[in-house]
Amino acid sequence: MFTGLSAFPVTPFHDEKIDFSAYQRLITNLTNARVDSICATGSTGLYPYLTCDELSAVAKCTVELADNIPVMAGIGALRTADVLRNAEAVQKAGVSAVLLAPVSYHPLKENEVFSLYQRVTAELSVPLCVYENPGVTNFTFSDELYHNVSHLPKVAAIKIPGMPFATEQGVERLAQLRNIVPETVAIGVSGDKFGAAGIAAGCDLWLSVLGGLFPHTVKRLIHAAQSDQKVIQSAKKLDGLWELFARNKGGMRVMATAANILGYSEVNCLPQPLSPLAGEDRVMLANLLKQLQLD
Amino acid sequence: MFTGLSAFPVTPFHDEKIDFSAYQRLITNLTNARVDSICATGSTGLYPYLTCDELSAVAKCTVELADNIPVMAGIGALRTADVLRNAEAVQKAGVSAVLLAPVSYHPLKENEVFSLYQRVTAELSVPLCVYENPGVTNFTFSDELYHNVSHLPKVAAIKIPGMPFATEQGVERLAQLRNIVPETVAIGVSGDKFGAAGIAAGCDLWLSVLGGLFPHTVKRLIHAAQSDQKVIQSAKKLDGLWELFARNKGGMRVMATAANILGYSEVNCLPQPLSPLAGEDRVMLANLLKQLQLD
Repeated sequence: MFTGLSAFPVTPFHDEKIDFSAYQRLITNLTNARVDSICATGSTGLYPYLTCDELSAVAKCTVELADNIPVMAGIGALRTADVLRNAEAVQKAGVSAVLLAPVSYHPLKENEVFSLYQRVTAELSVPLCVYENPGVTNFTFSDELYHNVSHLPKVAAIKIPGMPFATEQGVERLAQLRNIVPETVAIGVSGDKFGAAGIAAGCDLWLSVLGGLFPHTVKRLIHAAQSDQKVIQSAKKLDGLWELFARNKGGMRVMATAANILGYSEVNCLPQPLSPLAGEDRVMLANLLKQLQLD
Repeated sequence: MFTGLSAFPVTPFHDEKIDFSAYQRLITNLTNARVDSICATGSTGLYPYLTCDELSAVAKCTVELADNIPVMAGIGALRTADVLRNAEAVQKAGVSAVLLAPVSYHPLKENEVFSLYQRVTAELSVPLCVYENPGVTNFTFSDELYHNVSHLPKVAAIKIPGMPFATEQGVERLAQLRNIVPETVAIGVSGDKFGAAGIAAGCDLWLSVLGGLFPHTVKRLIHAAQSDQKVIQSAKKLDGLWELFARNKGGMRVMATAANILGYSEVNCLPQPLSPLAGEDRVMLANLLKQLQLD
């Protein structure tokens, strides 16, 4: 399942509760597009904001609608005990894989992160995708840690943060990572701005927030990148979107707002204190969506 | 209550559950020393790792043992709804104030942080201490936000991160903050390395992790700083401790380990994946404690 497009939908809210009817519309959009996999409750799907019951309900709903497309679910939590509970719940809900970031409040130490992955993989029945995202976890994997974690049983993929793949530096780093992790472990790019170049540079999959709402657009970019077409230029059209991502501390608020603009969800579709785009940024996003005609 | 020493004890664990018998010993140590206030479930007390029921139980236990020393409790959570639930629970448990940091996974925007404080203060019966700690929340307050938040009803104090108070830069910054916040709002220093200099520079209180285990030591430093004695030299003896804090990503693990070395709690006194100091760092800490004779 760790190939092509892994689509990361938002988890829309309504009055502090998950809006399952909006969520179903979002998942149907992804199954119609035949994405390669769906990650329910990724960062954009707000896994750390959900209770174990909510995680489980979203996972179950996704699996039921997925039409045999493999479903992954985010299971990260501050305490290992809660990660284990989440892992059990989403596995019962029928997911094909789990996504685990080293979530922290007190920044974690390397040995703590290793012990987390060791403990969780020892009890898993499904494959695990290791998830590095220093912007939200305040933790950066060293090469030694990548080596040790990626050799644990059940580890099948790593989701690396965006990096300049289109440059020599990016290409070199990907080659380094290939040497560190076992051949059987897929390397996935995230950070949508870097996705197309990451695929062109040889990443196995693109774990995409953009693809959680616009799967056809990202599938075309992946196809172009794999066929060595002028993918960078094609992706460049999206620069306005990446600016909005950067100004709003990531893609989550932008995609949640886009889901509302496109009629999937209501305006206040995030749990407080998170808030969707307002004012100029919302107008700019609406204009971009009209202009870009993403699908 | 926002004066002198606000002591921040660790919340010791035993086999993934709160070790209330160890906790009682820690609180008795603080009441015997007549600290000015106790902050149950600060960052060092692991509030984000606790359920609402656990927070409430720790707050209740602290209030019962506090012998009329005012008790504050940390109530931060990712979702405003959970912050409100925590606030209600610890107020029912009898706390005299609450401590609120803008806890995040997705880094928060200014308007979101303001809305959080606005919403929570609107429903509070007790004073609130605003808590800035970019190292754990990934959020830095702007001056405008400090102004707006500190003018909300119920806001009675701000807990600022450590800064070089002993330099002109630090003194200037404190003067700036005094101009921004109302006169009625206390300014408290945290980051123990900077505590003594902060008090000497004119901070109203020292919110202290070190003082959560060694209240007499910190009270003496505060007294010296207030009497304009050579406090910086006196605090300098603790440099070995600050090195351990820095190497272990903050004071929490160091103080939890010290609590064990001193017989308050057991070795594995943190919830996984957090782990106490081991190997050389533990030996160094044991030696430091022997040498410094903190109390």
